[in-house]
Amino acid sequence: MDVLATADAYWRAANYLSVGQIYLMDNPLLAEPLRPEHVKPRLLGHWGTTPGLNFCFAHLNRVIKERDQDMIYICGPGHGGPAVLAHAWLEGTYTERYPEVSQDADGMRRLFRQFSFPGGVPSHAAPETPGSIHEGGELGYSLAHAYGAAFDNPGLVVACVIGDGEAETGPLATSWHSNKFLNPRRDGRVLPILHLNGYKIANPTVLARIPEDELLKLMEGYGHRPHVVAGSDPAAVHEAMAATLDTVFDEMGDGGRPPMIILRTPKGWTGPHEVDGLPVEGTWRAHQVPIDDVRRRPDRLAMLEEWMRSYRPHELFGEDGRPAPEILSTVPDGPRRMSANPHTNGGELLRPLVLPDFRDYAVEVKSHATSPTEPTKVLGRLLRDVIAANSSAFRLMGPDETASNRLSAVFEVTDKAWYAATLPTDEHLSPDGRVMEVLSEHLCQGWLEGYLLTGRHGLFNCYEAFIHIVDAMFNQHAKWLESSQKIGWRRPIASFNYLLSSHVWRQDHNGFSHQDPGFLDVVMNKKSSVVRVYLPPDANTLLSVADHCLRSRDYVNVIVAGKHPVLDLMSMDEAVAHCTRGVGVFDWASNDEGAEPDVVLACAGDVPTLETLAAAALLRGHLPELKVRVVNVVDLMRLQPSSEHPHGMSDAEFDTVFTADKPVIFNFHGYPWLIHRLTYRRNGHDNLHVRGYREEGTTTTPFDMAMMNDIDRYHLVMDVVDRVPGLGATQAHLRQHMADARLRCRIHTREYGEDPVEIRDWAWPY
Amino acid sequence: MDVLATADAYWRAANYLSVGQIYLMDNPLLAEPLRPEHVKPRLLGHWGTTPGLNFCFAHLNRVIKERDQDMIYICGPGHGGPAVLAHAWLEGTYTERYPEVSQDADGMRRLFRQFSFPGGVPSHAAPETPGSIHEGGELGYSLAHAYGAAFDNPGLVVACVIGDGEAETGPLATSWHSNKFLNPRRDGRVLPILHLNGYKIANPTVLARIPEDELLKLMEGYGHRPHVVAGSDPAAVHEAMAATLDTVFDEMGDGGRPPMIILRTPKGWTGPHEVDGLPVEGTWRAHQVPIDDVRRRPDRLAMLEEWMRSYRPHELFGEDGRPAPEILSTVPDGPRRMSANPHTNGGELLRPLVLPDFRDYAVEVKSHATSPTEPTKVLGRLLRDVIAANSSAFRLMGPDETASNRLSAVFEVTDKAWYAATLPTDEHLSPDGRVMEVLSEHLCQGWLEGYLLTGRHGLFNCYEAFIHIVDAMFNQHAKWLESSQKIGWRRPIASFNYLLSSHVWRQDHNGFSHQDPGFLDVVMNKKSSVVRVYLPPDANTLLSVADHCLRSRDYVNVIVAGKHPVLDLMSMDEAVAHCTRGVGVFDWASNDEGAEPDVVLACAGDVPTLETLAAAALLRGHLPELKVRVVNVVDLMRLQPSSEHPHGMSDAEFDTVFTADKPVIFNFHGYPWLIHRLTYRRNGHDNLHVRGYREEGTTTTPFDMAMMNDIDRYHLVMDVVDRVPGLGATQAHLRQHMADARLRCRIHTREYGEDPVEIRDWAWPY
Repeated sequence: MDVLATADAYWRAANYLSVGQIYLMDNPLLAEPLRPEHVKPRLLGHWGTTPGLNFCFAHLNRVIKERDQDMIYICGPGHGGPAVLAHAWLEGTYTERYPEVSQDADGMRRLFRQFSFPGGVPSHAAPETPGSIHEGGELGYSLAHAYGAAFDNPGLVVACVIGDGEAETGPLATSWHSNKFLNPRRDGRVLPILHLNGYKIANPTVLARIPEDELLKLMEGYGHRPHVVAGSDPAAVHEAMAATLDTVFDEMGDGGRPPMIILRTPKGWTGPHEVDGLPVEGTWRAHQVPIDDVRRRPDRLAMLEEWMRSYRPHELFGEDGRPAPEILSTVPDGPRRMSANPHTNGGELLRPLVLPDFRDYAVEVKSHATSPTEPTKVLGRLLRDVIAANSSAFRLMGPDETASNRLSAVFEVTDKAWYAATLPTDEHLSPDGRVMEVLSEHLCQGWLEGYLLTGRHGLFNCYEAFIHIVDAMFNQHAKWLESSQKIGWRRPIASFNYLLSSHVWRQDHNGFSHQDPGFLDVVMNKKSSVVRVYLPPDANTLLSVADHCLRSRDYVNVIVAGKHPVLDLMSMDEAVAHCTRGVGVFDWASNDEGAEPDVVLACAGDVPTLETLAAAALLRGHLPELKVRVVNVVDLMRLQPSSEHPHGMSDAEFDTVFTADKPVIFNFHGYPWLIHRLTYRRNGHDNLHVRGYREEGTTTTPFDMAMMNDIDRYHLVMDVVDRVPGLGATQAHLRQHMADARLRCRIHTREYGEDPVEIRDWAWPY
Repeated sequence: MDVLATADAYWRAANYLSVGQIYLMDNPLLAEPLRPEHVKPRLLGHWGTTPGLNFCFAHLNRVIKERDQDMIYICGPGHGGPAVLAHAWLEGTYTERYPEVSQDADGMRRLFRQFSFPGGVPSHAAPETPGSIHEGGELGYSLAHAYGAAFDNPGLVVACVIGDGEAETGPLATSWHSNKFLNPRRDGRVLPILHLNGYKIANPTVLARIPEDELLKLMEGYGHRPHVVAGSDPAAVHEAMAATLDTVFDEMGDGGRPPMIILRTPKGWTGPHEVDGLPVEGTWRAHQVPIDDVRRRPDRLAMLEEWMRSYRPHELFGEDGRPAPEILSTVPDGPRRMSANPHTNGGELLRPLVLPDFRDYAVEVKSHATSPTEPTKVLGRLLRDVIAANSSAFRLMGPDETASNRLSAVFEVTDKAWYAATLPTDEHLSPDGRVMEVLSEHLCQGWLEGYLLTGRHGLFNCYEAFIHIVDAMFNQHAKWLESSQKIGWRRPIASFNYLLSSHVWRQDHNGFSHQDPGFLDVVMNKKSSVVRVYLPPDANTLLSVADHCLRSRDYVNVIVAGKHPVLDLMSMDEAVAHCTRGVGVFDWASNDEGAEPDVVLACAGDVPTLETLAAAALLRGHLPELKVRVVNVVDLMRLQPSSEHPHGMSDAEFDTVFTADKPVIFNFHGYPWLIHRLTYRRNGHDNLHVRGYREEGTTTTPFDMAMMNDIDRYHLVMDVVDRVPGLGATQAHLRQHMADARLRCRIHTREYGEDPVEIRDWAWPY
């Protein structure tokens, strides 16, 4: 039989199944005339994009079979659920993953009924969907995901259908440039299919309404060879698409610019032309449910039945509901099916990282808090050897900040991926580089998501303030993981690791716009099964935390660690013990000697920890009788109740560390209320006083930044003095002394433009 | 004198002043040989982009003078502070705004010293910078800001210099398409100047390394007429730039595609060629401070002095430090100076909105909570008349969701702005439309920021979950406002108003990816002087809140309000009183009759309020003796202590409403811990139990969503039963009864795909 007729049959079958999912809860094969009770009471789902998606599936399957091509499919347009589910069911994968949705009439009924139904499946491509690594809800990330999947996967083609609505988003608009970061000798290929159906929810799309020569220039300007497939007559478009795909797959190997396809077909193609005298097919009215009120209006019911029968279901399915042999003949074998390709269930392909022993990178610490080290610089050495040992399964992402974040050791073994022109003066650029630098946090995030979801490993280093740029993408990835953890067949993938360096306390030179530690608040809104936040205070703890994160699965790990010198606090053995506990007393900085202290100085984050240690030293000098306990928190989740987070401490543990009733001055890296939010149920909460960033900043010195937000050593001492009872006359005297010290520092910085030398030395006299 | 020689003199003066700001704290005119103590101890600032920015200033000033052109300048590249400050000082504006920085030698010394110095000014274009509406810290928003400034400003040209680093970001990549939304008959013009200096911090840029024909096609594909100005020989580039600007300004009036300029000059142009044998000018090494360690190394000091003297300062400034007459002759007059153009201090131009009386749109409420209304639909009528009454000073932004958010009444008086092709089937598209719809939250946000900062008004309506896409932009705008409020000459501008509709509780049909109320947590991290959050529970309260927000200045107002029918709770008079108080007791739903209640049911948000009312009704039926007080919170900031927020209640007020020691079940729209964070210092906090979104969701029914997160009426009753002491046997019985009701609802939805009719009716039996 003619291959295009077969593709058309597959397409009709997929379209039929798509309409059925949107509308029906019974009578899936239309074995009897459609009655109102066969129709769902709530009609939820989106038809507009679906026939175009189905069309692509039909044609890509032919290519897969003819060329034995390893290929996956990314469904960019929103609400493509009916299409990807129809496809997975036709390929048999859906039934393999969910046996109750069998490949027969009863299974078809279940497939229809469950769609957008309580207790059923979402209306987008989602974690529940076999063959998907991309959620179709929030738009803009399909092409970045496609490139992430293609990196280090030679032989793989990632077909990425991009909706013309989605194409208006910023992240998608810059994703086209990803082709300058893909090395065709090392990586797979991305085939963008820009699907112009002309409309988004209620409006035409920009790319569908600019002149075609402008659109072609745009795609050429993005570095692609565009091919247009356009029309509304199925037979003609089938022919054009088949011929174009043959051309395009040939071009992929010819060393020229990467090809892409512009597919211009009507929105809601093959659906109702008109409803109530208004045009539907080919307009925005086809976006969602093109015929509504079907249960109550017999004319609408008839219209729906006519529409469904227009696909000639009796030719496509047997009486038992099984797809006809002709259709099954188009389905590729086993893992070649796009719905079953193992790249789309990355955990199946995941190999553990080969990790050197992080202890080998330890900074030698002879005594606590005497020598200074730049923590991220030390981490850079570990990452260097991780990259060297995992030459095709680890990438380091950063928006042009890898060197700025002091991770430059990685350039001893690799370069920055670059597939555009180079100049003799360039350094560390190469098509084979494993560091991905582009000034787009969206691309860094999207690439790494795609890379991890297909079973590899990585880390994203970023300025802390600007990680907010990807808040929404983080949310969606966390939601993906939250859902995936409940799906048996989804195998765990490597965690998404953030390293936030160049953080709020050392953006003193870049000023107010670079000072925002609020990403932690966004992260902590997601489920405790998914999110982890670490604030290692020195180099050895950073190494220990990083090793833990790189080994973990299915989490989002956020590590906040500075690039500037901080004092080495712990030997590696101590660091491992401290990080394992997640929170602990610095005995060497405390003088409570195991007894109940008069006050607890708690801290989380490198700069707050140093200021806390300095405050403890000041207190020891000025109030030697005062029993001070210094507590450091590395793992922020430890503060939560054990009922809320698996890392959470029991109340008894919490009281042992923080006391149940003594004043606690908590010096925190981020916005102070995050600590209150985590601890409000604790016994000692009423005695907890938190310092942190309170949105004060400018271009000034590091210590002036601390003073502007009252996290500095002097203010901490003032806080202690204010809160510990019974200090008598000492109180006023010491308070004034500290206020004077602050004033002296401020005057010095205003005069000389730098902090006084005793501050710059970070000296801590123990 | 030759006009290009004059432009060159201006350029050299600006470059001299720029280098001076980065390096010197004394000896500004090099009146004596440079000594180490003249140099700042911390060298902070960015040279790389500066000479290009200065070059543009010099040439645009010529155009302004020759054509009497109204023009403002947006400085997109990061860290352009030295350039914009030099320019404002040369134009005299800086001295007008900050008299102590006089236009003489002493003023020059202050100008230099204050830059990136403690107590001084930031290293970016910032609110402190005269002539700026754009912060240069976080990159990507310059072009969107430029279009926002140009809308409804016929006659104005917004020159927008775009850095090639910035051009890699997603928001910038899609901003080019803004030209499809600008109507040259109604709006001003945007002149994009893509400045390719070739490098970002440590890498080449993409657009500088693609072939020139590709770059030209890209710009043509974006709908522009590109003009290239390239070179490193100043004389030749001066000539080319002058000729090109003449062409470009002629083209702006010829009805063709909007022109743009590609300016290709070396990074750190005119700076040191080489330092320590490594090339600097024309490489990424020129990005920040090209010569460091100047205080300690005499050879470096000499190099700096030679560099500064290469600009021939004695020709540019008098011995008194005043700019030479030749340079002053290039400065436009008064408000034509780009540093003094009133559009850049929008508050100067701001006119109050003509606002109809919002009471005229009131829904008639004969009895509390009986009739249903779609709140945003009612708001749409008010917005319609706001648009009609303010035909050139109000715009409504939305990412293709204005109709979906039920604001369609606006289309009775206006259309959607659209300057691309149209089809006969299109509706409500017009070049004159005042609704801006594009599927990019970044563009909506950036356009509205630019529009407000230049003295106009607007509102951004968005799906709640996807507003996270602009978290980072919100942060930066809030920081701008925080800083602006402290700057005397910056006049207040209209507030940025968000309407978050299609919120978490009614995204049941779109599923988990559309469910995220966390933007409120991001907002609440910013200063209390700037942020306001409102959760009106019905149509009349929404009207009252919206009126208040549209009248306010210098805030970010977030309004969360649903588009689905909710019960009308209050007459307009009651609504005004309730919104004025911000928090209040619903007497009509309570039975404590002014006495101390047994339990308080508090709520914030429309769906949580309805469930709370239903819970109160259930309690009245089942436990008529129980004294229940229903409290509703409209203004979230009221919960904070009065010391933390100007809207905050005193503890006494709080106790009067919430009691000091009775159980409070708080049903909240968002993540529950936000309420704890706001109230942890209150007396009754230990008795406060908060329900809210706990990250559970999928595609299901509205009530099933409520049940998944335990905010439903039945669970609230269970919460009451669990927390009110002394209920005896009633407790277990009622608890079981409620659990049974939940189970029945769940079974019903799983069976029929919709909520039971008694839930769908939203009936509340009072």
